[in-house]
Amino acid sequence: MRVLITGAAGMLGRKLTARLTSAGVLAGGPIDQLDLADIAAIADEVGHRTIEVDLAEPGAAERIAASGYDVVFHLAGVVSGEAEADLTKGYRVNLDGTRRLFDALAAADAIPRVVFTSSIAVFGAPFPDIIPDDFHLTPLTSYGTQKAMGEGLLADYSRRGLIDGIGIRLPTITVRPGSPNAAASGFFSGIVREPLAGTAATLPVPRSVRHPHASPRTAVDYLIHAAELDTAAVGPRRNLTMPSLSVTVQEQIDALERVAGPAAVDLIEERPDPAVATIVSGWPERFATDRADALGFRCERTYDEIIACYLEDDRPRS
Amino acid sequence: MRVLITGAAGMLGRKLTARLTSAGVLAGGPIDQLDLADIAAIADEVGHRTIEVDLAEPGAAERIAASGYDVVFHLAGVVSGEAEADLTKGYRVNLDGTRRLFDALAAADAIPRVVFTSSIAVFGAPFPDIIPDDFHLTPLTSYGTQKAMGEGLLADYSRRGLIDGIGIRLPTITVRPGSPNAAASGFFSGIVREPLAGTAATLPVPRSVRHPHASPRTAVDYLIHAAELDTAAVGPRRNLTMPSLSVTVQEQIDALERVAGPAAVDLIEERPDPAVATIVSGWPERFATDRADALGFRCERTYDEIIACYLEDDRPRS
Repeated sequence: MRVLITGAAGMLGRKLTARLTSAGVLAGGPIDQLDLADIAAIADEVGHRTIEVDLAEPGAAERIAASGYDVVFHLAGVVSGEAEADLTKGYRVNLDGTRRLFDALAAADAIPRVVFTSSIAVFGAPFPDIIPDDFHLTPLTSYGTQKAMGEGLLADYSRRGLIDGIGIRLPTITVRPGSPNAAASGFFSGIVREPLAGTAATLPVPRSVRHPHASPRTAVDYLIHAAELDTAAVGPRRNLTMPSLSVTVQEQIDALERVAGPAAVDLIEERPDPAVATIVSGWPERFATDRADALGFRCERTYDEIIACYLEDDRPRS
Repeated sequence: MRVLITGAAGMLGRKLTARLTSAGVLAGGPIDQLDLADIAAIADEVGHRTIEVDLAEPGAAERIAASGYDVVFHLAGVVSGEAEADLTKGYRVNLDGTRRLFDALAAADAIPRVVFTSSIAVFGAPFPDIIPDDFHLTPLTSYGTQKAMGEGLLADYSRRGLIDGIGIRLPTITVRPGSPNAAASGFFSGIVREPLAGTAATLPVPRSVRHPHASPRTAVDYLIHAAELDTAAVGPRRNLTMPSLSVTVQEQIDALERVAGPAAVDLIEERPDPAVATIVSGWPERFATDRADALGFRCERTYDEIIACYLEDDRPRS
């Protein structure tokens, strides 16, 4: 079993690498080779082959695909804020890079399983209260547009038997480890992570805001399950909205209080930011993910479980 | 008012050219310049500027866009059968050509109205009985995928204020003038056109097959209405399923009989073709086009009207 991870230097890429390295198997077979690709330098302490590559550069993907992978996790991409700030770069990395990779894999002898991380950013307001699997994609960001276009390519190339793809639309992943970042969604992690570390966090939106979450551990579960499932059961609609836990900010805070007590909650400072509130009001709140549920994708049932994942997997040890 | 039509040598391109030439105005202003572009040679008898161009070739779209158009009708593309037979050509023409054109228009000083012909091929079975405006796009052809990707670009570039686009998803256009062609949908026109000319036609599917239609005249109406409407009323969801008349083959035949008598109907030979029947069974039957209806797009109410359009506009004069 030869496996490639693109975007391996990112948060999910590193967690997936650690999981696969630890397990040593994927889809019932031993992992003989696990290669890590990223446009940035990759910190690898295990001895994996690391490939610093810009997939959008002509010829780059072909050189990589020549290794003949059985499974490719395509996580590489520029994030939402960057894709919005730099139109050319966003389309270059998120569309051209994906297309060149798929074309290179299609040209190889084998038909690899390709797991593509899409995003609920493919959806755009207005929404029904609960968004069904057959709701249309009307992204309101360039990032979401590029992900939707990648989904289209994945499904078409899979239908033609060139690759064997599964696209998974990830919800917001919390609690993200590390430092606060500038993303508009950053507070969803920050209001839990910072108080758990004894530091202050800012809440820019009302506590009534509802949002779909899954833990980083669950996101890695999704990636691996997508690599292992029987795609004959999926049919031609290869892109799936992943299950998520829909909770309000108040429910997040209640869970935090159960785990860490009222002193932790006191570290959350409510500082309404109309700009953030406007952005967040355009985001989906809740999905009905019947298809992914039936295919065995599972997420947390309570926010307490999501906090427990963070404490077990990512809490800094001082 | 400076206007460009791409794909001007095609059936719709020629009809749109004739209509605009005859009208002399568009969106309330006189048409000062009407340029016709196509990858094939364009037969022009009026004196329009004709441009033989491959829009997917680097630099080609930029040279054209330098003219500073107010309205661009982007009809160019390879058709469904060809896009399925030649993967590389389909993506090159339908995706790269569209992207290069939009990029070139985005780089120009003005913000042109761009009318993009998409197709109900962006949808793929299984369907509900009536397909609503918010039904997801899961094409089952490369052509449909490429059109869906073009729709995504159009909406994103419009949201960013780079172009002012409207994508119109056309139903099957009947009665097509000219000779029978090899398209799987060709019989929908042939069973009317051939008997009206006194020649035999083949019907490869059961008379119970239901399908959405509009006349070529209505398709041109859609193009012009899309060029003239107030896009502020459309919002960010710039791609619209056009109204269509959903009728069974039996209803088409009944209309033919009312127009041309039973002798015409006798010229239709039922010769079931399981291959065609399978293809057609994957096509949509009926749409609810609330958004386009509200924006003033209108199609025929009876198949008799569609036949009347053909007789008035296209019946060969012997």
